Amino acid sequence: MRQIAIVGLGLIGGSLGMRIRERGLAEVLGIDVDAAVIEKALRVGAADDATTDLERVGEADIVILAVPLEQVVSVGREAARHTRDGTVVTDVGSVKEPVVKALGHLRGVRFVGGHPMFGTERQGIEHAAATLMDDHPYLVTPVASTGLDALAEVEDLARGMGMRPLRLSPEVHDRLVAQVSHLPYLVALALASSVDPGAEEVAGPGFKDATRIARSPVALWDEIVRQNRSHILMALDRLDRRLRDVREAIERQDLRSVVDEMGSGGDASPGELVEEEL
Amino acid sequence: MRQIAIVGLGLIGGSLGMRIRERGLAEVLGIDVDAAVIEKALRVGAADDATTDLERVGEADIVILAVPLEQVVSVGREAARHTRDGTVVTDVGSVKEPVVKALGHLRGVRFVGGHPMFGTERQGIEHAAATLMDDHPYLVTPVASTGLDALAEVEDLARGMGMRPLRLSPEVHDRLVAQVSHLPYLVALALASSVDPGAEEVAGPGFKDATRIARSPVALWDEIVRQNRSHILMALDRLDRRLRDVREAIERQDLRSVVDEMGSGGDASPGELVEEEL
Repeated sequence: MRQIAIVGLGLIGGSLGMRIRERGLAEVLGIDVDAAVIEKALRVGAADDATTDLERVGEADIVILAVPLEQVVSVGREAARHTRDGTVVTDVGSVKEPVVKALGHLRGVRFVGGHPMFGTERQGIEHAAATLMDDHPYLVTPVASTGLDALAEVEDLARGMGMRPLRLSPEVHDRLVAQVSHLPYLVALALASSVDPGAEEVAGPGFKDATRIARSPVALWDEIVRQNRSHILMALDRLDRRLRDVREAIERQDLRSVVDEMGSGGDASPGELVEEEL
Repeated sequence: MRQIAIVGLGLIGGSLGMRIRERGLAEVLGIDVDAAVIEKALRVGAADDATTDLERVGEADIVILAVPLEQVVSVGREAARHTRDGTVVTDVGSVKEPVVKALGHLRGVRFVGGHPMFGTERQGIEHAAATLMDDHPYLVTPVASTGLDALAEVEDLARGMGMRPLRLSPEVHDRLVAQVSHLPYLVALALASSVDPGAEEVAGPGFKDATRIARSPVALWDEIVRQNRSHILMALDRLDRRLRDVREAIERQDLRSVVDEMGSGGDASPGELVEEEL
Protein backbone atom coordinates (compact mmCIF):
# COMPACT_ATOMS: atom_id res chain seq x y z
CA MET A 1 0.00 0.00 0.00
CA ARG A 2 1.08 3.55 -0.73
CA GLN A 3 2.72 5.47 2.13
CA ILE A 4 1.89 9.10 2.93
CA ALA A 5 3.96 10.92 5.53
CA ILE A 6 2.26 13.85 7.24
CA VAL A 7 4.74 16.17 8.93
CA GLY A 8 3.00 18.20 11.62
CA LEU A 9 -0.02 16.64 13.31
CA GLY A 10 -2.10 19.68 14.20
CA LEU A 11 -5.68 20.41 13.23
CA ILE A 12 -4.96 20.22 9.48
CA GLY A 13 -2.39 17.41 9.47
CA GLY A 14 -4.45 15.39 11.91
CA SER A 15 -7.67 15.80 9.94
CA LEU A 16 -5.96 14.83 6.66
CA GLY A 17 -4.52 11.74 8.34
CA MET A 18 -7.91 10.69 9.66
CA ARG A 19 -9.57 11.07 6.28
CA ILE A 20 -6.80 9.31 4.34
CA ARG A 21 -7.02 6.32 6.69
CA GLU A 22 -10.83 6.32 6.87
CA ARG A 23 -11.01 6.16 3.06
CA GLY A 24 -8.17 3.66 2.72
CA LEU A 25 -6.24 5.99 0.40
CA ALA A 26 -2.83 5.14 1.87
CA GLU A 27 -1.01 4.15 5.02
CA VAL A 28 -0.23 7.23 7.08
CA LEU A 29 3.08 7.84 8.80
CA GLY A 30 2.61 10.73 11.23
CA ILE A 31 5.65 12.85 12.10
CA ASP A 32 5.72 15.52 14.78
CA VAL A 33 8.35 17.04 17.07
CA ASP A 34 6.06 16.54 20.07
CA ALA A 35 5.88 12.97 21.45
CA ALA A 36 2.59 13.75 23.26
CA VAL A 37 1.02 14.83 19.95
CA ILE A 38 2.18 11.61 18.32
CA GLU A 39 0.52 9.58 21.03
CA LYS A 40 -2.74 11.50 20.60
CA ALA A 41 -2.59 11.16 16.81
CA LEU A 42 -2.32 7.38 17.10
CA ARG A 43 -5.12 7.30 19.66
CA VAL A 44 -7.56 9.28 17.48
CA GLY A 45 -6.65 7.32 14.36
CA ALA A 46 -4.85 10.07 12.48
CA ALA A 47 -1.88 7.80 11.67
CA ASP A 48 -1.03 4.11 11.29
CA ASP A 49 2.44 4.70 12.66
CA ALA A 50 3.99 7.83 14.13
CA THR A 51 7.43 9.11 14.99
CA THR A 52 9.43 12.18 15.97
CA ASP A 53 12.09 11.17 13.44
CA LEU A 54 11.86 13.35 10.30
CA GLU A 55 14.31 11.05 8.48
CA ARG A 56 11.54 8.50 8.13
CA VAL A 57 10.00 10.59 5.29
CA GLY A 58 12.31 8.30 3.30
CA GLU A 59 9.59 5.63 3.58
CA ALA A 60 6.92 7.79 1.93
CA ASP A 61 5.60 8.12 -1.63
CA ILE A 62 3.98 11.46 -0.79
CA VAL A 63 5.03 13.88 1.96
CA ILE A 64 2.53 16.45 3.22
CA LEU A 65 4.10 19.36 5.11
CA ALA A 66 1.45 20.45 7.63
CA VAL A 67 3.67 22.41 10.00
CA PRO A 68 3.00 26.07 10.88
CA LEU A 69 3.57 28.46 7.97
CA GLU A 70 6.84 29.88 9.32
CA GLN A 71 8.35 26.38 9.39
CA VAL A 72 7.19 25.08 6.00
CA VAL A 73 10.31 26.11 4.10
CA SER A 74 12.89 24.96 6.65
CA VAL A 75 11.12 21.66 7.40
CA GLY A 76 10.57 21.11 3.67
CA ARG A 77 14.28 21.56 2.96
CA GLU A 78 15.24 19.28 5.80
CA ALA A 79 12.72 16.62 4.75
CA ALA A 80 14.01 16.71 1.16
CA ARG A 81 17.40 15.55 2.42
CA HIS A 82 15.83 12.25 3.47
CA THR A 83 13.18 11.53 0.82
CA ARG A 84 13.60 8.97 -1.93
CA ASP A 85 14.21 10.34 -5.41
CA GLY A 86 11.04 11.63 -7.06
CA THR A 87 8.93 11.73 -3.91
CA VAL A 88 5.95 14.08 -4.22
CA VAL A 89 6.16 16.80 -1.56
CA THR A 90 3.27 19.16 -0.95
CA ASP A 91 2.37 21.63 1.79
CA VAL A 92 -0.80 23.11 3.26
CA GLY A 93 0.36 26.69 3.93
CA SER A 94 -2.03 29.65 3.71
CA VAL A 95 0.37 31.76 1.61
CA LYS A 96 1.86 30.20 -1.51
CA GLU A 97 4.23 32.51 -3.39
CA PRO A 98 7.10 32.49 -0.85
CA VAL A 99 6.73 28.75 -0.20
CA VAL A 100 6.60 27.78 -3.88
CA LYS A 101 9.58 30.03 -4.62
CA ALA A 102 11.63 28.39 -1.88
CA LEU A 103 10.60 24.76 -2.37
CA GLY A 104 9.57 24.61 -6.06
CA HIS A 105 13.10 23.78 -7.25
CA LEU A 106 14.27 21.45 -4.50
CA ARG A 107 16.43 18.71 -5.96
CA GLY A 108 15.22 15.14 -5.93
CA VAL A 109 11.60 15.84 -4.99
CA ARG A 110 8.55 16.81 -7.02
CA PHE A 111 7.02 19.77 -5.17
CA VAL A 112 3.39 20.91 -5.51
CA GLY A 113 2.09 23.88 -3.53
CA GLY A 114 -1.23 23.08 -1.88
CA HIS A 115 -3.82 24.65 0.38
CA PRO A 116 -6.83 22.65 1.55
CA MET A 117 -9.45 25.27 2.47
CA PHE A 118 -10.72 24.10 5.82
CA GLY A 119 -10.05 24.80 9.45
CA THR A 120 -11.67 26.14 12.58
CA GLU A 121 -10.76 28.78 15.14
CA ARG A 122 -9.35 25.92 17.23
CA GLN A 123 -5.96 24.35 16.80
CA GLY A 124 -4.32 21.03 17.54
CA ILE A 125 -4.92 17.33 17.05
CA GLU A 126 -7.60 17.51 19.79
CA HIS A 127 -9.89 19.33 17.38
CA ALA A 128 -9.00 17.46 14.19
CA ALA A 129 -11.87 15.77 12.35
CA ALA A 130 -12.08 14.22 8.90
CA THR A 131 -15.47 15.85 8.22
CA LEU A 132 -14.06 19.39 8.46
CA MET A 133 -12.84 19.17 4.87
CA ASP A 134 -16.01 17.85 3.21
CA ASP A 135 -16.73 19.52 -0.15
CA HIS A 136 -14.35 22.43 0.38
CA PRO A 137 -11.81 23.52 -2.26
CA TYR A 138 -8.30 22.05 -2.24
CA LEU A 139 -6.23 24.75 -3.94
CA VAL A 140 -3.11 23.63 -5.80
CA THR A 141 -0.63 26.19 -7.13
CA PRO A 142 1.42 24.81 -10.01
CA VAL A 143 4.19 26.82 -11.67
CA ALA A 144 6.07 26.22 -14.93
CA SER A 145 8.40 23.69 -13.32
CA THR A 146 5.63 21.63 -11.70
CA GLY A 147 5.29 18.17 -13.19
CA LEU A 148 1.82 17.25 -14.42
CA ASP A 149 2.19 13.79 -12.90
CA ALA A 150 2.94 15.17 -9.43
CA LEU A 151 0.11 17.70 -9.76
CA ALA A 152 -2.29 14.90 -10.72
CA GLU A 153 -1.19 12.84 -7.69
CA VAL A 154 -2.03 15.67 -5.30
CA GLU A 155 -5.32 16.42 -7.07
CA ASP A 156 -6.32 12.75 -7.01
CA LEU A 157 -5.54 12.63 -3.32
CA ALA A 158 -7.66 15.76 -2.74
CA ARG A 159 -10.58 14.24 -4.64
CA GLY A 160 -10.14 10.97 -2.78
CA MET A 161 -10.47 12.89 0.47
CA GLY A 162 -13.74 14.47 -0.69
CA MET A 163 -12.37 17.90 -1.53
CA ARG A 164 -12.52 19.86 -4.81
CA PRO A 165 -9.08 20.48 -6.36
CA LEU A 166 -8.74 23.88 -8.04
CA ARG A 167 -5.62 25.18 -9.82
CA LEU A 168 -4.38 28.72 -9.30
CA SER A 169 -1.01 30.35 -9.79
CA PRO A 170 0.68 31.13 -6.45
CA GLU A 171 0.15 34.85 -7.05
CA VAL A 172 -3.57 34.52 -7.83
CA HIS A 173 -3.91 32.20 -4.85
CA ASP A 174 -2.37 34.74 -2.51
CA ARG A 175 -4.52 37.55 -3.87
CA LEU A 176 -7.80 35.64 -3.62
CA VAL A 177 -7.06 34.03 -0.28
CA ALA A 178 -6.20 37.48 1.07
CA GLN A 179 -9.77 38.44 0.15
CA VAL A 180 -11.71 35.38 1.26
CA SER A 181 -9.66 34.18 4.24
CA HIS A 182 -7.15 36.69 5.57
CA LEU A 183 -9.43 39.74 5.25
CA PRO A 184 -12.40 38.04 6.99
CA TYR A 185 -10.11 37.25 9.94
CA LEU A 186 -8.98 40.87 10.22
CA VAL A 187 -12.55 42.10 9.90
CA ALA A 188 -13.67 39.71 12.64
CA LEU A 189 -10.89 41.06 14.82
CA ALA A 190 -11.97 44.65 14.19
CA LEU A 191 -15.64 43.77 14.78
CA ALA A 192 -14.96 41.90 18.01
CA SER A 193 -12.90 44.78 19.35
CA SER A 194 -15.25 47.59 18.26
CA VAL A 195 -18.25 46.67 20.44
CA ASP A 196 -18.99 47.92 23.95
CA PRO A 197 -17.61 45.76 26.79
CA GLY A 198 -20.08 42.95 27.44
CA ALA A 199 -22.11 43.60 24.29
CA GLU A 200 -21.63 39.96 23.28
CA GLU A 201 -24.07 39.09 26.07
CA VAL A 202 -26.98 40.52 24.10
CA ALA A 203 -25.90 39.04 20.76
CA GLY A 204 -27.63 36.32 18.81
CA PRO A 205 -25.89 33.67 16.71
CA GLY A 206 -24.95 36.14 13.95
CA PHE A 207 -22.35 37.99 15.99
CA LYS A 208 -20.82 34.77 17.24
CA ASP A 209 -20.54 33.49 13.67
CA ALA A 210 -19.04 36.79 12.50
CA THR A 211 -16.36 36.93 15.21
CA ARG A 212 -15.57 33.26 15.91
CA ILE A 213 -12.44 33.26 13.74
CA ALA A 214 -11.05 36.23 15.73
CA ARG A 215 -10.37 33.81 18.58
CA SER A 216 -7.91 31.69 16.57
CA PRO A 217 -4.25 31.94 17.59
CA VAL A 218 -2.79 35.30 16.66
CA ALA A 219 0.70 33.85 16.11
CA LEU A 220 -0.61 31.91 13.12
CA TRP A 221 -2.18 35.04 11.63
CA ASP A 222 0.81 37.22 12.40
CA GLU A 223 2.88 34.99 10.13
CA ILE A 224 0.23 34.88 7.39
CA VAL A 225 -0.01 38.67 7.42
CA ARG A 226 3.78 38.96 7.27
CA GLN A 227 4.00 36.66 4.24
CA ASN A 228 1.00 38.05 2.34
CA ARG A 229 1.14 41.69 3.36
CA SER A 230 0.74 43.48 0.04
CA HIS A 231 -2.32 41.48 -1.02
CA ILE A 232 -3.86 41.88 2.42
CA LEU A 233 -3.35 45.64 2.42
CA MET A 234 -4.99 45.82 -0.99
CA ALA A 235 -7.93 43.78 0.24
CA LEU A 236 -8.25 46.10 3.27
CA ASP A 237 -8.29 49.10 0.92
CA ARG A 238 -11.10 47.63 -1.11
CA LEU A 239 -13.09 46.78 1.99
CA ASP A 240 -12.59 50.32 3.20
CA ARG A 241 -14.03 51.69 -0.05
CA ARG A 242 -17.00 49.33 0.18
CA LEU A 243 -17.67 50.39 3.78
CA ARG A 244 -17.70 53.98 2.59
CA ASP A 245 -20.22 52.98 -0.10
CA VAL A 246 -22.33 51.34 2.61
CA ARG A 247 -22.21 54.50 4.72
CA GLU A 248 -23.25 56.67 1.78
CA ALA A 249 -26.05 54.24 0.93
CA ILE A 250 -27.30 54.51 4.53
CA GLU A 251 -27.19 58.28 4.34
CA ARG A 252 -29.29 58.38 1.19
CA GLN A 253 -31.50 55.50 2.44
CA ASP A 254 -30.68 53.16 -0.40
CA LEU A 255 -28.93 50.06 0.91
CA ARG A 256 -30.25 48.15 -2.06
CA SER A 257 -27.69 49.79 -4.36
CA VAL A 258 -24.84 48.09 -2.47
CA VAL A 259 -26.61 44.74 -2.53
CA ASP A 260 -27.19 45.04 -6.28
CA GLU A 261 -23.49 45.59 -6.85
CA MET A 262 -22.68 42.60 -4.67
CA GLY A 263 -24.93 40.42 -6.81
CA SER A 264 -23.24 41.48 -10.04
CA GLY A 265 -19.83 40.55 -8.69
CA GLY A 266 -20.63 36.87 -8.42
CA ASP A 267 -21.16 35.62 -11.94
CA ALA A 268 -17.62 35.16 -13.22
CA SER A 269 -16.68 31.50 -13.46
CA PRO A 270 -13.80 30.23 -11.35
CA GLY A 271 -12.05 29.33 -14.59
CA GLU A 272 -11.38 33.00 -15.18
CA LEU A 273 -9.40 33.12 -11.96
CA VAL A 274 -6.96 30.47 -12.97
CA GLU A 275 -3.77 31.59 -14.60
CA GLU A 276 -2.55 28.43 -16.19
CA GLU A 277 1.21 28.43 -16.28
CA LEU A 278 1.69 24.89 -17.44
CA MET B 1 -55.36 27.00 28.66
CA ARG B 2 -53.76 30.38 28.06
CA GLN B 3 -54.10 31.82 24.54
CA ILE B 4 -51.22 33.50 22.73
CA ALA B 5 -51.89 35.26 19.44
CA ILE B 6 -48.93 35.62 17.09
CA VAL B 7 -49.47 38.27 14.44
CA GLY B 8 -47.20 37.64 11.47
CA LEU B 9 -46.18 34.05 10.77
CA GLY B 10 -42.76 34.48 9.22
CA LEU B 11 -39.47 32.95 10.34
CA ILE B 12 -39.66 34.51 13.82
CA GLY B 13 -43.41 34.28 14.45
CA GLY B 14 -43.52 30.75 13.06
CA SER B 15 -40.58 29.58 15.17
CA LEU B 16 -42.08 31.09 18.35
CA GLY B 17 -45.39 29.38 17.60
CA MET B 18 -43.71 26.01 17.14
CA ARG B 19 -41.78 26.30 20.39
CA ILE B 20 -44.78 27.53 22.44
CA ARG B 21 -46.85 24.58 21.24
CA GLU B 22 -44.03 22.04 21.53
CA ARG B 23 -43.52 23.03 25.18
CA GLY B 24 -47.23 23.29 25.96
CA LEU B 25 -46.84 26.89 27.13
CA ALA B 26 -50.13 28.06 25.61
CA GLU B 27 -52.53 27.56 22.74
CA VAL B 28 -51.36 29.50 19.71
CA LEU B 29 -53.66 31.51 17.48
CA GLY B 30 -51.73 32.40 14.33
CA ILE B 31 -52.73 35.55 12.45
CA ASP B 32 -51.38 36.54 9.05
CA VAL B 33 -52.65 38.56 6.09
CA ASP B 34 -51.65 35.74 3.72
CA ALA B 35 -54.01 32.75 3.61
CA ALA B 36 -51.27 30.54 2.09
CA VAL B 37 -48.98 31.32 5.02
CA ILE B 38 -51.75 30.41 7.46
CA GLU B 39 -52.17 27.06 5.79
CA LYS B 40 -48.42 26.38 5.98
CA ALA B 41 -48.29 27.48 9.62
CA LEU B 42 -51.00 24.98 10.54
CA ARG B 43 -49.27 22.25 8.53
CA VAL B 44 -45.88 22.73 10.22
CA GLY B 45 -47.45 22.99 13.68
CA ALA B 46 -46.75 26.67 14.32
CA ALA B 47 -50.34 27.32 15.45
CA ASP B 48 -53.34 25.47 16.88
CA ASP B 49 -55.72 27.69 14.97
CA ALA B 50 -55.02 30.37 12.40
CA THR B 51 -56.86 33.21 10.72
CA THR B 52 -56.48 36.30 8.55
CA ASP B 53 -58.82 38.17 10.92
CA LEU B 54 -56.82 40.52 13.17
CA GLU B 55 -59.92 41.13 15.34
CA ARG B 56 -59.46 37.69 16.83
CA VAL B 57 -56.60 39.05 19.00
CA GLY B 58 -59.59 39.65 21.33
CA GLU B 59 -59.32 35.94 22.27
CA ALA B 60 -55.69 36.23 23.44
CA ASP B 61 -54.05 36.75 26.84
CA ILE B 62 -50.76 37.70 25.16
CA VAL B 63 -50.31 39.14 21.68
CA ILE B 64 -46.92 38.86 19.97
CA LEU B 65 -46.44 41.26 17.06
CA ALA B 66 -44.08 39.46 14.68
CA VAL B 67 -44.76 41.48 11.54
CA PRO B 68 -41.96 43.26 9.60
CA LEU B 69 -40.47 46.22 11.49
CA GLU B 70 -42.13 48.89 9.35
CA GLN B 71 -45.57 47.45 10.22
CA VAL B 72 -45.13 46.90 13.97
CA VAL B 73 -46.54 50.26 15.04
CA SER B 74 -49.53 50.33 12.69
CA VAL B 75 -50.46 46.67 13.28
CA GLY B 76 -49.94 47.15 17.04
CA ARG B 77 -52.33 50.11 17.09
CA GLU B 78 -54.91 48.25 15.04
CA ALA B 79 -54.61 45.14 17.21
CA ALA B 80 -55.07 47.19 20.39
CA ARG B 81 -58.53 48.21 19.15
CA HIS B 82 -59.63 44.59 19.44
CA THR B 83 -57.81 43.22 22.48
CA ARG B 84 -59.43 42.61 25.84
CA ASP B 85 -58.56 45.11 28.57
CA GLY B 86 -55.15 44.44 30.11
CA THR B 87 -53.89 42.12 27.37
CA VAL B 88 -50.09 41.88 27.30
CA VAL B 89 -48.81 43.02 23.89
CA THR B 90 -45.19 42.55 22.92
CA ASP B 91 -43.26 42.76 19.66
CA VAL B 92 -40.10 41.24 18.19
CA GLY B 93 -38.72 44.24 16.25
CA SER B 94 -34.96 44.76 15.79
CA VAL B 95 -35.11 48.45 16.78
CA LYS B 96 -36.85 49.38 20.01
CA GLU B 97 -36.90 53.11 20.73
CA PRO B 98 -39.36 54.13 17.98
CA VAL B 99 -41.61 51.12 18.64
CA VAL B 100 -41.68 51.58 22.43
CA LYS B 101 -42.35 55.31 22.03
CA ALA B 102 -45.29 54.63 19.71
CA LEU B 103 -46.83 51.62 21.48
CA GLY B 104 -45.70 52.04 25.11
CA HIS B 105 -48.70 54.15 26.07
CA LEU B 106 -51.45 52.45 24.11
CA ARG B 107 -54.67 52.43 26.12
CA GLY B 108 -56.12 49.20 27.36
CA VAL B 109 -53.06 47.03 26.71
CA ARG B 110 -49.90 46.38 28.70
CA PHE B 111 -47.07 46.80 26.19
CA VAL B 112 -43.56 45.31 26.61
CA GLY B 113 -40.91 45.85 23.94
CA GLY B 114 -39.15 42.60 23.08
CA HIS B 115 -36.46 41.25 20.76
CA PRO B 116 -35.67 37.54 20.69
CA MET B 117 -32.12 37.32 19.31
CA PHE B 118 -32.36 34.60 16.71
CA GLY B 119 -32.87 34.34 12.99
CA THR B 120 -31.17 33.18 9.84
CA GLU B 121 -30.46 34.74 6.46
CA ARG B 122 -33.64 33.02 5.27
CA GLN B 123 -37.14 34.30 5.77
CA GLY B 124 -40.64 32.87 5.94
CA ILE B 125 -42.54 30.10 7.68
CA GLU B 126 -40.77 27.59 5.39
CA HIS B 127 -37.56 28.13 7.35
CA ALA B 128 -39.05 28.46 10.82
CA ALA B 129 -37.76 26.02 13.46
CA ALA B 130 -38.18 25.94 17.23
CA THR B 131 -34.51 25.08 17.76
CA LEU B 132 -33.27 28.34 16.19
CA MET B 133 -33.86 30.15 19.51
CA ASP B 134 -32.15 27.72 21.88
CA ASP B 135 -30.09 29.49 24.56
CA HIS B 136 -30.06 32.86 22.82
CA PRO B 137 -30.91 36.12 24.62
CA TYR B 138 -34.49 37.40 24.63
CA LEU B 139 -34.07 41.15 25.09
CA VAL B 140 -36.89 43.04 26.80
CA THR B 141 -36.90 46.83 26.90
CA PRO B 142 -38.99 48.16 29.79
CA VAL B 143 -39.53 51.88 30.34
CA ALA B 144 -40.93 53.75 33.37
CA SER B 145 -44.53 53.03 32.40
CA THR B 146 -44.00 49.29 31.89
CA GLY B 147 -45.82 47.16 34.45
CA LEU B 148 -43.65 44.67 36.33
CA ASP B 149 -46.38 42.04 35.99
CA ALA B 150 -46.48 42.37 32.20
CA LEU B 151 -42.69 42.35 32.05
CA ALA B 152 -42.60 39.17 34.15
CA GLU B 153 -45.13 37.49 31.86
CA VAL B 154 -42.96 38.12 28.79
CA GLU B 155 -39.79 37.08 30.62
CA ASP B 156 -41.44 33.87 31.88
CA LEU B 157 -42.57 33.10 28.36
CA ALA B 158 -39.01 33.68 27.07
CA ARG B 159 -37.59 31.34 29.72
CA GLY B 160 -40.30 28.79 28.99
CA MET B 161 -39.20 28.84 25.35
CA GLY B 162 -35.59 28.15 26.33
CA MET B 163 -34.24 31.68 25.84
CA ARG B 164 -32.45 34.00 28.30
CA PRO B 165 -34.41 37.17 29.12
CA LEU B 166 -32.24 40.26 29.54
CA ARG B 167 -33.50 43.76 30.40
CA LEU B 168 -32.19 46.83 28.59
CA SER B 169 -33.58 50.30 28.09
CA PRO B 170 -34.75 50.83 24.48
CA GLU B 171 -31.87 53.24 23.91
CA VAL B 172 -29.20 50.85 25.22
CA HIS B 173 -30.83 48.05 23.23
CA ASP B 174 -30.62 50.04 20.02
CA ARG B 175 -27.00 51.00 20.66
CA LEU B 176 -25.82 47.47 21.45
CA VAL B 177 -27.84 45.76 18.75
CA ALA B 178 -26.41 48.25 16.24
CA GLN B 179 -22.99 46.87 17.26
CA VAL B 180 -23.69 43.14 17.46
CA SER B 181 -26.36 42.69 14.80
CA HIS B 182 -26.76 45.61 12.41
CA LEU B 183 -23.04 46.31 12.02
CA PRO B 184 -22.15 42.65 11.30
CA TYR B 185 -24.74 42.65 8.52
CA LEU B 186 -23.26 45.77 6.93
CA VAL B 187 -19.75 44.37 7.27
CA ALA B 188 -20.83 41.11 5.63
CA LEU B 189 -22.30 43.16 2.80
CA ALA B 190 -19.06 45.11 2.36
CA LEU B 191 -16.97 41.91 2.55
CA ALA B 192 -19.12 40.03 0.05
CA SER B 193 -18.93 42.92 -2.41
CA SER B 194 -15.21 43.65 -2.00
CA VAL B 195 -13.85 40.36 -3.37
CA ASP B 196 -12.94 39.59 -6.97
CA PRO B 197 -15.74 38.09 -9.10
CA GLY B 198 -15.81 34.35 -8.48
CA ALA B 199 -13.47 34.48 -5.49
CA GLU B 200 -16.08 32.64 -3.41
CA GLU B 201 -15.17 29.55 -5.42
CA VAL B 202 -11.81 29.25 -3.70
CA ALA B 203 -13.16 30.04 -0.22
CA GLY B 204 -13.40 27.69 2.71
CA PRO B 205 -16.17 27.69 5.31
CA GLY B 206 -14.90 30.89 6.99
CA PHE B 207 -15.87 33.19 4.13
CA LYS B 208 -19.29 31.58 3.81
CA ASP B 209 -19.89 32.05 7.55
CA ALA B 210 -18.71 35.66 7.37
CA THR B 211 -20.95 36.63 4.45
CA ARG B 212 -24.02 34.40 4.88
CA ILE B 213 -26.10 37.15 6.52
CA ALA B 214 -25.44 39.45 3.54
CA ARG B 215 -27.89 37.33 1.57
CA SER B 216 -30.87 38.13 3.82
CA PRO B 217 -33.57 40.36 2.31
CA VAL B 218 -32.33 43.92 1.92
CA ALA B 219 -35.83 45.39 2.45
CA LEU B 220 -35.73 44.18 6.06
CA TRP B 221 -32.33 45.79 6.65
CA ASP B 222 -33.24 48.98 4.82
CA GLU B 223 -35.96 49.53 7.42
CA ILE B 224 -33.69 48.62 10.36
CA VAL B 225 -31.04 51.05 9.12
CA ARG B 226 -33.67 53.77 8.68
CA GLN B 227 -34.95 53.32 12.26
CA ASN B 228 -31.58 52.93 13.96
CA ARG B 229 -29.43 55.16 11.79
CA SER B 230 -27.54 57.22 14.39
CA HIS B 231 -26.43 54.18 16.42
CA ILE B 232 -25.45 52.34 13.25
CA LEU B 233 -23.37 55.25 11.96
CA MET B 234 -21.59 55.41 15.33
CA ALA B 235 -20.88 51.68 15.19
CA LEU B 236 -19.52 52.08 11.65
CA ASP B 237 -17.23 54.89 12.87
CA ARG B 238 -15.84 52.68 15.62
CA LEU B 239 -15.28 49.80 13.24
CA ASP B 240 -13.50 52.16 10.88
CA ARG B 241 -11.12 53.22 13.66
CA ARG B 242 -10.48 49.58 14.59
CA LEU B 243 -9.74 48.69 10.97
CA ARG B 244 -7.21 51.53 10.90
CA ASP B 245 -5.65 50.08 14.07
CA VAL B 246 -5.48 46.70 12.33
CA ARG B 247 -3.78 48.24 9.31
CA GLU B 248 -1.22 50.01 11.48
CA ALA B 249 -0.61 46.79 13.42
CA ILE B 250 0.04 44.98 10.14
CA GLU B 251 2.45 47.69 9.06
CA ARG B 252 4.47 47.42 12.24
CA GLN B 253 4.09 43.59 12.28
CA ASP B 254 2.32 43.46 15.62
CA LEU B 255 -1.18 42.06 15.17
CA ARG B 256 -1.06 40.86 18.74
CA SER B 257 -1.61 44.40 20.06
CA VAL B 258 -5.09 44.49 18.46
CA VAL B 259 -5.95 41.06 19.84
CA ASP B 260 -4.84 42.11 23.32
CA GLU B 261 -7.18 45.09 23.21
CA MET B 262 -10.02 42.86 22.06
CA GLY B 263 -9.50 40.62 25.06
CA SER B 264 -9.63 43.48 27.51
CA GLY B 265 -12.96 44.66 26.12
CA GLY B 266 -14.82 41.56 27.18
CA ASP B 267 -14.81 41.50 30.95
CA ALA B 268 -17.59 43.94 31.83
CA SER B 269 -20.64 42.12 33.14
CA PRO B 270 -23.89 42.44 31.20
CA GLY B 271 -25.41 44.01 34.32
CA GLU B 272 -23.45 47.15 33.59
CA LEU B 273 -25.24 47.47 30.29
CA VAL B 274 -28.69 47.58 31.79
CA GLU B 275 -30.15 50.97 32.52
CA GLU B 276 -32.91 50.12 34.93
CA GLU B 277 -35.72 52.60 34.56
CA LEU B 278 -38.25 50.82 36.74
